[in-house]
Parts: sequence; C-alpha cells; structure tokens
Amino acid sequence: MAGNSFGEVFRITTFGESHGKAIGVIIDGCPPNVTVDEDFIQNELDKRKPGQSKITTQRKESDTCQILSGVFEGKTTGTPIAIVIPNEDQKSKDYDHNKDVFRPSHADYVYQQKYGIRDHRGGGRSSARETAARVAAGAIAKLALKQLGIEIAAHVSSVGTIDAPHVDISSVSEFEALRESNITRCADPATANEMITLIDSVRKAGDTIGGKVSCTIKNCPVGLGEPVFDKLHADLGKAMLSINAVHGFDYGSGFDGSSMRGSEHNDIFDVDSNGKVITRTNFSGGIQGGISNGMDINFRVAFKPVATIMTNQQTINKDGQIDEIKGKGRHDPCVVPRAVAIVEAMAALVVLDHYLRNKVYL
Amino acid sequence: MAGNSFGEVFRITTFGESHGKAIGVIIDGCPPNVTVDEDFIQNELDKRKPGQSKITTQRKESDTCQILSGVFEGKTTGTPIAIVIPNEDQKSKDYDHNKDVFRPSHADYVYQQKYGIRDHRGGGRSSARETAARVAAGAIAKLALKQLGIEIAAHVSSVGTIDAPHVDISSVSEFEALRESNITRCADPATANEMITLIDSVRKAGDTIGGKVSCTIKNCPVGLGEPVFDKLHADLGKAMLSINAVHGFDYGSGFDGSSMRGSEHNDIFDVDSNGKVITRTNFSGGIQGGISNGMDINFRVAFKPVATIMTNQQTINKDGQIDEIKGKGRHDPCVVPRAVAIVEAMAALVVLDHYLRNKVYL
Amino acid sequence: MAGNSFGEVFRITTFGESHGKAIGVIIDGCPPNVTVDEDFIQNELDKRKPGQSKITTQRKESDTCQILSGVFEGKTTGTPIAIVIPNEDQKSKDYDHNKDVFRPSHADYVYQQKYGIRDHRGGGRSSARETAARVAAGAIAKLALKQLGIEIAAHVSSVGTIDAPHVDISSVSEFEALRESNITRCADPATANEMITLIDSVRKAGDTIGGKVSCTIKNCPVGLGEPVFDKLHADLGKAMLSINAVHGFDYGSGFDGSSMRGSEHNDIFDVDSNGKVITRTNFSGGIQGGISNGMDINFRVAFKPVATIMTNQQTINKDGQIDEIKGKGRHDPCVVPRAVAIVEAMAALVVLDHYLRNKVYL
Amino acid sequence: MAGNSFGEVFRITTFGESHGKAIGVIIDGCPPNVTVDEDFIQNELDKRKPGQSKITTQRKESDTCQILSGVFEGKTTGTPIAIVIPNEDQKSKDYDHNKDVFRPSHADYVYQQKYGIRDHRGGGRSSARETAARVAAGAIAKLALKQLGIEIAAHVSSVGTIDAPHVDISSVSEFEALRESNITRCADPATANEMITLIDSVRKAGDTIGGKVSCTIKNCPVGLGEPVFDKLHADLGKAMLSINAVHGFDYGSGFDGSSMRGSEHNDIFDVDSNGKVITRTNFSGGIQGGISNGMDINFRVAFKPVATIMTNQQTINKDGQIDEIKGKGRHDPCVVPRAVAIVEAMAALVVLDHYLRNKVYL
Repeated sequence: MAGNSFGEVFRITTFGESHGKAIGVIIDGCPPNVTVDEDFIQNELDKRKPGQSKITTQRKESDTCQILSGVFEGKTTGTPIAIVIPNEDQKSKDYDHNKDVFRPSHADYVYQQKYGIRDHRGGGRSSARETAARVAAGAIAKLALKQLGIEIAAHVSSVGTIDAPHVDISSVSEFEALRESNITRCADPATANEMITLIDSVRKAGDTIGGKVSCTIKNCPVGLGEPVFDKLHADLGKAMLSINAVHGFDYGSGFDGSSMRGSEHNDIFDVDSNGKVITRTNFSGGIQGGISNGMDINFRVAFKPVATIMTNQQTINKDGQIDEIKGKGRHDPCVVPRAVAIVEAMAALVVLDHYLRNKVYL
Repeated sequence: MAGNSFGEVFRITTFGESHGKAIGVIIDGCPPNVTVDEDFIQNELDKRKPGQSKITTQRKESDTCQILSGVFEGKTTGTPIAIVIPNEDQKSKDYDHNKDVFRPSHADYVYQQKYGIRDHRGGGRSSARETAARVAAGAIAKLALKQLGIEIAAHVSSVGTIDAPHVDISSVSEFEALRESNITRCADPATANEMITLIDSVRKAGDTIGGKVSCTIKNCPVGLGEPVFDKLHADLGKAMLSINAVHGFDYGSGFDGSSMRGSEHNDIFDVDSNGKVITRTNFSGGIQGGISNGMDINFRVAFKPVATIMTNQQTINKDGQIDEIKGKGRHDPCVVPRAVAIVEAMAALVVLDHYLRNKVYL
Repeated sequence: MAGNSFGEVFRITTFGESHGKAIGVIIDGCPPNVTVDEDFIQNELDKRKPGQSKITTQRKESDTCQILSGVFEGKTTGTPIAIVIPNEDQKSKDYDHNKDVFRPSHADYVYQQKYGIRDHRGGGRSSARETAARVAAGAIAKLALKQLGIEIAAHVSSVGTIDAPHVDISSVSEFEALRESNITRCADPATANEMITLIDSVRKAGDTIGGKVSCTIKNCPVGLGEPVFDKLHADLGKAMLSINAVHGFDYGSGFDGSSMRGSEHNDIFDVDSNGKVITRTNFSGGIQGGISNGMDINFRVAFKPVATIMTNQQTINKDGQIDEIKGKGRHDPCVVPRAVAIVEAMAALVVLDHYLRNKVYL
Repeated sequence: MAGNSFGEVFRITTFGESHGKAIGVIIDGCPPNVTVDEDFIQNELDKRKPGQSKITTQRKESDTCQILSGVFEGKTTGTPIAIVIPNEDQKSKDYDHNKDVFRPSHADYVYQQKYGIRDHRGGGRSSARETAARVAAGAIAKLALKQLGIEIAAHVSSVGTIDAPHVDISSVSEFEALRESNITRCADPATANEMITLIDSVRKAGDTIGGKVSCTIKNCPVGLGEPVFDKLHADLGKAMLSINAVHGFDYGSGFDGSSMRGSEHNDIFDVDSNGKVITRTNFSGGIQGGISNGMDINFRVAFKPVATIMTNQQTINKDGQIDEIKGKGRHDPCVVPRAVAIVEAMAALVVLDHYLRNKVYL
C-alpha cells in the first residue's frame, strides 16, 4: 500500500533516507540454496555508487553492505535476507538552505503536501540514494538468475542527442567489457567518447543532461509473465518508471512501432538449426501477449536531466511565497552512467519474480 | 499472483474469454454512496465496442452490461460490484483453422507453452475483448472521480506517421465533442480526416497500422502516488502497458526529455492569481517524485499495429513444424480509435485507486 | 483491502447480496488442466443449500451454478474461473420490517455505521448466503487436491452440550457415508440422533443453538505453510473465523493443550514400517512451526447460535432510539449441519493455496 | 507470499534468525507525525525479553533496538521505519548437537524438508526470538493508537489448569499495575502466586507447561474490520495463531458460545446514559459481522507447552534414522508471561491496520 515493496514472490522492501543512519532492503521470498557471492554484490554496488569519475557526483560513499540474515554458510536459506548499507558522507549542512524552500522539479513540495512533514536533508526518502538498496537486492536476484542461465545486459545508448548505434550482444561478458571500458558505460567506445565530452561540458556549465539506457535480457525461458495486468513488459515498465528521473519506457519496436504496418511488424515464426522455435524478426521484443517467447527481451528507458543544477532558480517556500534557491552542493551532471546498474537490478528483480511465479503452473 | 487483478484499494479482477459465455469484472473496494449512472457506463462501453464504423472490426457485439451486485437503489454500497457482459456474435468456426497453428505476433504460442492448454477461439483470454470489462470498471471509477471533480481526457494523437498538433484542453466537454465528431477520435478534425484516409487505405490492403493515444488528467489533487515503487506515473505506465498491443509509455517531457538540459527542463514554481502553487512549465507532466503536484497530468501511449492481417503468413504448428496461417476473419485495421476509451478507463482506475490510498494519510 | 478476496496463488473473490440478482465468485490462479466435474460442484453446493431437511431454514434455493469462463472442453485453462449462482427464492418483503431497525447480534448496525448505506434485505452482503460462492470455489479446489491425493473430511462433532466421541477416519469415503446417513452430518450415528432431537426441540421453541465442526486433512505433503505470519494453521484459522457465526478455532491439542506439560505434549518422531517419518502422537495436529509435517491435520471450529430467533427482541433503530424487532421469517435452528460443507471448502482453499505457494521452493 | 509480512496498510516485514547478526523489522505504511517515544518501545521489548525472572529462560539479551529510518526529529515521516535488534548472547555451540537431529515438536524437521537447508542454531528463523521484532513494531502501533485513544490490555489468564477469575478492566493503567506486580503477569495477584508455584515446580522437573493469555481492546471505534474474509476477528485470529506455540483462539463467547442458545447469546441493543449505542451483554466480543461495534473487544489465546525440555527424547536424524536428543541448553518453563507483550503487539498491529483501512470509506 505505501509503495516501498516490489515483486510478488521475490519481494523486496527498501528503507532509508539519504542522510539517515542507513539505507537497506529486506528480500522476502528468495529461493533457498542460492550461493551468495558478496564480492559480486559489492561490485554491482560499485557501479552505482557516487564519486566514480569526473562525470558523477563527488559525494563519497563506500556503499559497503552488510547481510544481517537469511544467509547461512554462504547460501540462502529461504528466509528473509536483510541488507544494510550505512550512510557515511552526509553533508547535511549543505541542505539547511532548502529546509523551508522547495527545489524546482524535485519531490520536496509534494512530500511536504502529502505527509505534512519531511526529512529535507539530501532529498530524504526521495533521494536516488534509495536505489543502492535496489542494486543490492538485484545482485542477489542476478546470482539466482545466473544459476538458471539467464543474463541481463544494459548500457547507455544515448546522452542528450548523441545516440549510440545498435550494439549486438552475442556475448554478455564481451559486451560488459566494452561498456566498462569507459566512464559513461556506453558499449560503443567511439560514441562513449562523444558522450563524455558532452557531459563534461554540461558539468562545467553547472547544468545537467538526460539520456537513455537500453537493456537486453538473454536466455529467458518461454512462459514468463502473467496475462492481462501483470504482463512481463508491464511489470518491467513499472519497475523502470519507478527509478528516479525516468520519464519513458518502451520495448521491442516501442514508440517506433506505432508508425509501422502489421505486415512489416509481425514476427514470422521459424525453426532454427537446433529445432528451437524462433521468430525471424523481433519487433515483439521477446514478449507476446505479455509472456516471454524465448527471444531476447529488449527495452529502453528514458531519463530526464537531473534537477539539481548549479545556478540560482526561483521557487516557493513553505509559506507559499516566491523565494530563491541557490545552486550549491554536489550533483550528477548526467545520471545514466550510474543508472545502468539500477536498470539491470530492476530487470533482474522482475525476471526472477516472474520466473518464480511461473513455477506455480509447472 | 495470476495477474487478473489491478489496483490496491479500488481493485478490479476481470474474467472471460473472447468466445466463452461472458466476460466481466468484479470491483472490490468501491467507496459507498457513488451514484451509478448505467447509461454513462453503457456509453463508455459503446466507445470501445466493435462494429462502430468502417475503420473498426465488423464483429457485432452490443456489449450490454448487467450489474449483479454492490449497487442498491442506484448507489454503491461498499460491497463488491460484479458486472457481466455476455458474448454474442461469436463466429468460433472462423477460428478452427488456428486451433493447431500459432498466429504470428499473437499470444497463441506462449499461452500453449505456458499452460499446456488454451482456448484458441478468437484468442481466448488474450483477446482484446477482455478490455470491455476494464472499460465498465473504469466507468464506475469515472463516476466516483466526477464527484471529486477529477476529469480524464484522451484522444488519438497519431496514426502511423500522421501526428496531430498539440490540442489544448481547457474544457473537457468541448474536447470530447471535437474528438467524438470523427470516427478516428482525434480532437483535431483536420488531422482526423488524414488519419481516416490512411486507415481506410490500410484496411483495403488487408493490413493494419499502429498509432498513439495522448491523455490528460485534470484537477488531480496534490499528493497522489506513493514514493519509491508505486509512483503515480509508474502505476499509470503499468496500467497502459497492460493494454493489448501497447509497446511504449512516457509522461511529461517523456522520451524527448532525455535530450534536454536541466536548466530548460526544471519547472519553476510560481503562484497564480488565485494564490495556488503552480509550475510555469510542465515538463514534469504533473508528477514529481512520483506524486501529483496539482498540474495537469500528461502521458502518451504507443500502440503497435494489430497482428491480425488478411494475408497468408508462414508460421509453426503445435508439433513445432512450419505451417501457413490463412488471412481471414474480421479485424481492426487500427485499434487506436477504440483504444481511447480503454486508456481513459485505465487512467481512471489508477487515479481513483491512488486517491483512496492517499486517504490513509489524511 | 476491502476484504472480499482470499488466498495468494489460488485466490478467490466473492460477490453478491442475499437478495440481489446473483452471488458468485472469481477464482484467479487455478492451475491449468484440472478436470472440472460439474456434478461434483453441484453436490457440494447441495450440502450447504437451505431447505435440505426439517432442521435447516425453509428458504428454497436450487443453488445451481453456472461457469462463465476459465474452463475449456472440461478442463481449467489457467485463466480466471467465474461462477455465478442466481438468487431465486427471495422474500424481500419479509425484511421490510428491519429496514430501519437493527437486528440484535446481526451485522445490520455496523454496516450502517461503516458505510452509511446498506442493502437491508436478508442481511445483504452479511448474509451467510455468501458462503455458497465459497463452496463452489472450494469444490474446484477439492478437484485439484483430489488429483494430488489430498482429502478433506469434516463433520458435526458437537451441538449444544452434546459431544460426539472421537471418530477415526481411516477411509474418507466410509466416513462421508456415515456422516451423510443423517441430517445433522455427525459421523457418529448414535450421537446424531441425540443432536437431531435437540435441534428439533430448539426449532420448535423458535430458538437456535450453536455447535462445533471438526475437520481432518489427510495425505497433506510435508512442507506446506510459510513460516512466521502465514503459518498453515494461522491461515486455516483465519479461513474458519471468516465464516459467519464462527467464534473459535483450535488445532491439534488446541485449547486443551494449554493445560498440558511438554513431556506429554511433545510428539516423538518415529519411522513406520514403510520407512516413512511419523510422530507417535499428534498433539501438533499435523503442523509444526506452521508447516505441515505429513501427519493428519486436525482442527475444530466453534459456531455460536444463529442470531435470527422467532421471538420479539428489544433493539434500536436508525435514529438511535429504542425499538422492537419482531420474530418472523425463515431461519436455521442450528447452522452446523450446513456448515460442514463450508468448513471443508475453506480448508480446501487454504491447502491448495499453500500447496501452490510451496511449488516456488521446489 | 513467503509469509514474513503482516498487515495491509500498516505492514510489517520481519527478518532475522536466533543466532544470526540481528533480527529486525521494517514497518511500511506508518502514518506521518506519530511521536516516537523510544523509552516506551524499549519498555515493551523488556516485557518480552528473556532472562527477566526465574520463570523465564536465562538467555541474556538486552534487546536494545535501533531505529535506522522513517523517524525525523522524533516523529514518523510516513516513510518506512527500519528497526534492528542485534543478537548478543548466542551460545551457538549449545546447538551443535542438533545440527543433524530433529528436536521433537520443533520446526527443525519441516524446515529441512521444505527448504533443503536450515540454520539449525537456536531454531534459526523458527525461534520465538523473531517475536521481539513484532513487539518493536507493535510498540510503534501502540503509540499511534494512543493518539487515537485506543488501548490494549492483556494478561495471563491461565497456566496449566489454574484459571484466573474474570478481571474487570475499567482502567487500563490500574490493570497493568496489577499485572506487572508479579512475574507471571496475571492481573489477579492471588492466582498469580499459584501460577508461579506451579511454573517453578515444572521448571525444576525440567519440564514445561502451557497457558492462556486473555486480551481486551478498549475504545475501538465502530466500523473496523472488512466484511467477508478480512473480518476483524479473523485477522486477530490469524495474528495470534501466527505466534509461536499458539494452538487456539476464540473471541467473545468463544468455544463456550457453541453450547448456548440464540435467545441467551443475542446481545440486546441499548442506549447508555450518554446516548451512546451499547449492547447489554457482550457475547459478540465487540465484533458483529466481522466489524467492531464499539464495545470492548475480548479474545483468548491458548499456548501449548514449550517443546524444549530438559530430558532425553527419542527422535530421528537427517538420514531418517532413530536417534536421541539430549535435554540441555536454556529454556522457558512457561512462555505465557513473556507472551503477554507479543499478544498485545499483534493486537495493536491488527487494530491500527484496520483503523487505517477503514479511513478509505470516510
């Protein structure tokens, strides 16, 4: 009801404010006997953490997570897994200036109106810091998916108006190596260089810029997704739209599909050399009628530019009067390089959840 | 779990197959004392029903609904409202030919794989006929929202590559009159004519074409939407993506926002002449941090072209062998004119649900 | 939220008022490929229906159910199963006298206060007629359980102060034959005769009397039930307590167990001649730590006497003033004979739901 | 699904094993602006903690809780409240002997069968230590209820065959003073003395004994509880049955009501001197048709004797072979004195949850 949980079988509940004692997550419904590789979890968190490079915010958080329960002798036991990530580098003083004024295009105003109270420090609960808890939970989900042979691979496919060409993912590990070879996490290195130049100039101007993340899920078995409301792509869409700053989601042919004709859009069934049923094209994005069909699942996520900019802006204060907000503090000029880990984590949560849901029918 | 329910407080569960005895819906959690105008419900169903014009499928269904419970002397009682819509014009014989073959880009194949059984007639449960139940439930939600002064207005904003110009909605009733003045349900009549010509030519070619629906929610109070996972736009997104043939959703600045800078995208707060807090621009689409901010809520929904076309296509059969599917039966050349009612219904369900959820905090 | 649904995976939602057009149920999450025997369903409904004998209410309802969806060629398809039972013998006029007065120990007063509106005819939604929908859904659950070898057997174990001796259930069909051999549904025929005499005298006095139903679940596999909140017996308890007129639930040693010592109460593990793990005693009632242990599951359900009696009683009216309610209409002198079918239905719903939930771990 | 959450609006999720790093709880859906009195929370935990007196287990846990989120400047903010209680006095070595054997009437065997893995130390997740997390969450619920004037008062009403006489609760604080005046937490001091003598003799014999807790909820407004499945008493019943060692629940007239006649059981409506609607008797236990009617809510909870006893018992081991379990370690001779705090906590969770659920109708 209060919206801090996600998933039906593999269900996570996150907690924590940007400048409170800690953030964290409880995973309820993790299958037993998943081997928990803590280095892998930390590595996922490191991809999301602030302070990675000149194009991310300079807040320094080690984002070291601690597992409090649900794991015994290195394996999950089927009981709830609680993970806590302490907050460290909180410069709460930096936020004294917006205790009583509402930052434009942030959640300050609506939280105050909804609850009549808010923790204003660093955006409180509305801070994207909350997504670290999702990445930790997503890492556990990835470990479970890995045992099932399912892989997830996302990268930055556009920053501003710079679009990367389509990158084919035949090997996920090669794709990841290309992506991690540059600080903007675009798997096309030439485009990455352009993106870095752009982000850097935006940063110097005290401004921010949006971008897109593209994601592929490979080796997803046929049958995941529930017809009608809990279609696989509907849950993927909700998952992505729940990430801070996301303004759009499409899958398969996506928005472009709306200008196509059925005769070109239909994915003709075929049988490959191994006797496996495939479709010749994949405008369906691996999902038909809301259910995975065994092809690669493809989707895109659009991020608006970060609202925190380094220039002064008009706003209103608690009394409903015109005021001014000063541009200061630390900020991300472009979130998409850090968002890659979040998109993958949310995708892992959705796919594992639907994998487990589908076991009921088997 | 099985995905046939939607909403937390105002919760609907739909049932029924395209060629079964009936489809329908139970609404659980409707507030008491909502006046139920059955003509209004029927009128909403009429906007979605087949056979309305030359550009929709020729299946004839009166789509007359019957309320079995939850309404007493014209008012809701707070108990479950069951609505049944009998199926009438079922030409099940038309579907004998695809009992054992899977139609390309339909859900036939994945249903068979997931459940090991399917009602193949007319797509069974995967048929868009299911959405009539949503429209009936959405009509009840609209009646409840009307008592609260909240209005929802959608229209066809593009068909193929024909895009309507932005239509300003100061009066919903005028907007609806413009939209209903033409069979394609575009509120810009000049564009509507172009669209009709295009759809008609597509229909004559036995083909289909996609399009987009744009929707605005007016007078939504501040505070609807739950932070983190159940953000208002995340639930709107899931609702829209759960509609048959939808491949994309964005809100506010949407996909275009990903190429903007923060300095142009931020919505500066202001106070209008009535002392009401507003934003000067509305790239946030009426939602900030997942919570409504009192501005108009705007979003777009992208529909792929319908998969049923009148030409023969290669496919596979139950035995996994290459086969051919014949183009016959009745079909919609373009779904978006009928989809307007579905988009509005789903939007009404989401907004009313979040309105009721938010009462817990008041 | 509004409480008309039950179950997580095999989830039912009931609807309908006593004197409305129909009552019914949607089952969402029924596994595919369960063979649906409509005669069996009707037979279950017949055990609950009114007018069966001189010791039940004389309202005549055929309680004929109609399946609208989810079943194709005699088998479930995995899609929602909608079942409708029309109301027939409604003497709504009989209830005109309590439109404005509240019957003692009925739900009239609290419904009016909670919702500000109520369908007063025959108790509206609070009528035990709603349980017919549960029995229909429970019959589908029983059919699914039968395929798994799990059986459920309940009977009337007490009426007033008349207690039946313990009845051993080695064969469920023999047990049922004994139980159905008499109108009070007690599997000990000698006790049944005493009970019938008592109920008949109570009926003649225009009064009512309470009783208990005892239930056994046989061949339940080890592992059903979720630790902590959704313990198997906690869900059985909630299920039983949700039945009209139920005031108590216990399982295994139950209330008597609270006066025992650990040294006598502990169920010592042993291995039977087939090498199966058993316990020598079964004070645990087949459930340990909330999870089934493979032994018979035993529980008891206590029903208060029906509130509708044939004598005049003081009460209050809508204006909060003292008034009198006349004793008239049709009533059940003792509900337990009809309640046996309801207890079994709810038990079937809980066990099947937990069976499906447990598949996630396998 | 995995059963570690409870409640719909005020929803708690607990985590942690007996001998892991910590146990704890996330509360999602707590209303904003509840004043958080940390001393009160600690005091509630102290009533449940081990090592309080000679009649409780000698495990020493300070049970000091830490609030990680959701509270800002002493008030709840409407965001998730995470509470962690570190484990301290874990003598895990004491449990080495039951790594491979299953303790009779414990959850060892069923956990191993269900999950294929278990943390055997101190019962792992099945340990009653988990209930400390419930008490912490319940304390927050009590603070919210206190602001609403709703009070909850439980005590030990029986140990073995020693039953306390009915204790009238006109003042909750006086009742609590009487209850806390003795180590068995029975509000009738004379009976308490008898109980202590009994428990002490049982303890010396290395044995355990069961008992009952009776609970009253005062000043509950009319209208809480949802008809049909989520009746107020059905949710109270589930809550109580989910507590370790509970084997029975009844409310109002309870099991005794099943031998009464309607003419004596019906609660006649009346109007008190303040014009408030009351019932002359209260066999309904404050709940009619599943909805609170404004009278005191009364219920009883039956606890079986603790399974850990100090004598050797036959059992089986992991290989399904007969083995022996030695009686050693620390144990509670009778849980009910410590269970009073748990019963009150669970009652507070249910009442607050239904209070918030009911706001949707107002």
